[in-house]
Amino acid sequence: MEQLKGACILGQSGGPTAVINASAYGVIKAALDADCITAVYGAEHGIKGVLNDRLFDMGREDPKELELLRNTPSSELGSCRYKLAEPEVDDTDYRKIHEIFKKYNVRYFFYNGGNDSMDTCDKISRYMDKVGYECRVIGVPKTIDNDLFGTDHCPGFGSAAKYIATSTAEVYKDAHVYDTGMVTIIEIMGRHAGWLAAASSLASLSGCGPDLIYLPETNFVMDRFLEDVERVYKEKGNCLVAVSEGAHYENGLFVSEVQKSATDGFGHMQLGGLSVLLADVVKKNTGVKKVRDIELSLLQRCAAHMASKTDIDEAVLAGKAAVEAAVAGETGKMVAFERETVNDKYACRTKLVPLTSVANLEKKIPMDWITMEGNGVNQKYIEYALPLIQGEPERTTKYSLPRFAKLKKILAE
Amino acid sequence: MEQLKGACILGQSGGPTAVINASAYGVIKAALDADCITAVYGAEHGIKGVLNDRLFDMGREDPKELELLRNTPSSELGSCRYKLAEPEVDDTDYRKIHEIFKKYNVRYFFYNGGNDSMDTCDKISRYMDKVGYECRVIGVPKTIDNDLFGTDHCPGFGSAAKYIATSTAEVYKDAHVYDTGMVTIIEIMGRHAGWLAAASSLASLSGCGPDLIYLPETNFVMDRFLEDVERVYKEKGNCLVAVSEGAHYENGLFVSEVQKSATDGFGHMQLGGLSVLLADVVKKNTGVKKVRDIELSLLQRCAAHMASKTDIDEAVLAGKAAVEAAVAGETGKMVAFERETVNDKYACRTKLVPLTSVANLEKKIPMDWITMEGNGVNQKYIEYALPLIQGEPERTTKYSLPRFAKLKKILAE
Repeated sequence: MEQLKGACILGQSGGPTAVINASAYGVIKAALDADCITAVYGAEHGIKGVLNDRLFDMGREDPKELELLRNTPSSELGSCRYKLAEPEVDDTDYRKIHEIFKKYNVRYFFYNGGNDSMDTCDKISRYMDKVGYECRVIGVPKTIDNDLFGTDHCPGFGSAAKYIATSTAEVYKDAHVYDTGMVTIIEIMGRHAGWLAAASSLASLSGCGPDLIYLPETNFVMDRFLEDVERVYKEKGNCLVAVSEGAHYENGLFVSEVQKSATDGFGHMQLGGLSVLLADVVKKNTGVKKVRDIELSLLQRCAAHMASKTDIDEAVLAGKAAVEAAVAGETGKMVAFERETVNDKYACRTKLVPLTSVANLEKKIPMDWITMEGNGVNQKYIEYALPLIQGEPERTTKYSLPRFAKLKKILAE
Repeated sequence: MEQLKGACILGQSGGPTAVINASAYGVIKAALDADCITAVYGAEHGIKGVLNDRLFDMGREDPKELELLRNTPSSELGSCRYKLAEPEVDDTDYRKIHEIFKKYNVRYFFYNGGNDSMDTCDKISRYMDKVGYECRVIGVPKTIDNDLFGTDHCPGFGSAAKYIATSTAEVYKDAHVYDTGMVTIIEIMGRHAGWLAAASSLASLSGCGPDLIYLPETNFVMDRFLEDVERVYKEKGNCLVAVSEGAHYENGLFVSEVQKSATDGFGHMQLGGLSVLLADVVKKNTGVKKVRDIELSLLQRCAAHMASKTDIDEAVLAGKAAVEAAVAGETGKMVAFERETVNDKYACRTKLVPLTSVANLEKKIPMDWITMEGNGVNQKYIEYALPLIQGEPERTTKYSLPRFAKLKKILAE
């Protein structure tokens, strides 16, 4: 393969995670080290930064600050949720991107995100191919939701899972302190897949797991939920529930939406999320007096302080692998993970999958990992998820507070 | 002082914290080591365990498990919110307690809790004195709220403050990722004092502090709040707000309560807490489209994984000091902290204060630590709180998940 000389652009896209910057670090470091890559640009707010000609010169950053990206949550370059049109329908954006690529002689494009971002990546790859502009396009996976196709798991998931498991264990402790019983409902992210809510089950290894878990992989039945809660509460005098925000009825409607309209017939929008609503239903329909709802909200995706070292290392690895693949001539691919067992231990190696096989699809928890009753997960899930949360990262702190990366963000000339 | 030989009881009371078990460890360890203390009992669910004759023999626990109490959140012996009657009005409970004390020859009583618990402590002390039963009663302070009188600060506060500051910094990162602006409202515990909500200001040392902080020490004015938010949002394109759950109007009514009745005239109880309600008000009254509410809920008081080493060490110290004081002949006192500066560094020593001077009182943030506009705190608060969050504790984990203490809880014979 002949060497392709030119600049590269890295963009971050979609919802941030605790380790998306670790992948950025992997890309930036490997790209700065690659002889054929002449300049390394970070696009401000993902593809929008390309369209707006807002590119930061990563070569002018302090290497020590770049290294701190490993433990800096959220998308340091800025993110976006911008959907490119189909190039056949409207190629305005693509022509602009092409122009910018030519302006900076961009020959490598790395995009870090979830399934929507892989769609963006795929479209750009195909367009450049069509217009005969040589640019190698590689996607770097990212999503706390862990719902990307073609990869064993996604960077971002392990850290969120670890935060959820640890927080569930701690909340369990707190919720079991009084002799007067309590039902506690923890709402966890995941609109269409239950990987994150299921991670609460890992708290069982601390002896503090939830009693019931409801996932979007099964249909939610309100009466059965109430029966479950009452049964557990009767048996144990307490009940800890984990529920995916994406819990839905058989007809596909989200429980949160249906419940909102049901509880208020006067057209008033009920406030709060699913856990608030379910707590209200439990209060009204059971004898339980004390019901507490907890929404993990943004905390679960930005908690870099609880990141998994495995997740961070793999996130960096994914970024590095993307650069290596592109330099070696690959394009139109996403870096993916393959799980291996080496000396009886979990190991992870990277592979490449076509972007077209990933874009816009969603991977769910296999049904045989979910209990018959649809209110929990079994050992198969534990065995899958546990290796991904292992290890405590070295965190840089100042005054015992996080010391995040401070980038200069100097615009490219 | 003549040596008083007999058993001791330790009770945990009120809302749990990340380090209340560290104080328990301090008491148990020192009591087991004290020659004059013949047995060490842990009362199940605080004073209720005494009334119900449910005492666990701490001498039969594995010392290694006891040591794990240092990093086990919540009240391992169980807590209660049980208010003893005035002994002059109804002495039933006191007679029962006296009976149990005699049954086990209890001569030392340690009670770990907040201002209500110090009231319990004080009443028992006075009753035993009145009936001529020699028993030394010492209170051990505990509350994340930091609102106890007579002490520079309380065990439990430092760890909660550290969790709040770190989470605020992480949420700040997450909330600043898109180029479309957002208002984020974080609700923090504290009904009557703003120590915890103010701890969000420490995130400014990570460069990620909130723009606005509202505390119960000042009166909340909805119009001014909306003006503040709009001004910051206009200036920065983003606004991060921290608010005490105890934010109240000039007439003393909690904003959350008033707002609930205001938004729904049909007698429907609005669900959710203050942050949900304020987010709704911002949405309806400003041009801001994206408003997010986050309630830190129980997470902030049970997050042992984010505990401050200083807080843990001081919590142990408080427990130990209680035993030493009692053995030395003290009674009717609470252990308190005095802040010292040794070699230009923060140091903390214990002292004793009369229980009567502590019970049922609340300490608030001094008004000159709060900004003129009532929407933030100044450097004085930072200087006060920062030393209390210092240091990362050694955490025992298994599978990278918390390994909490497992007590056998064998009933006393």
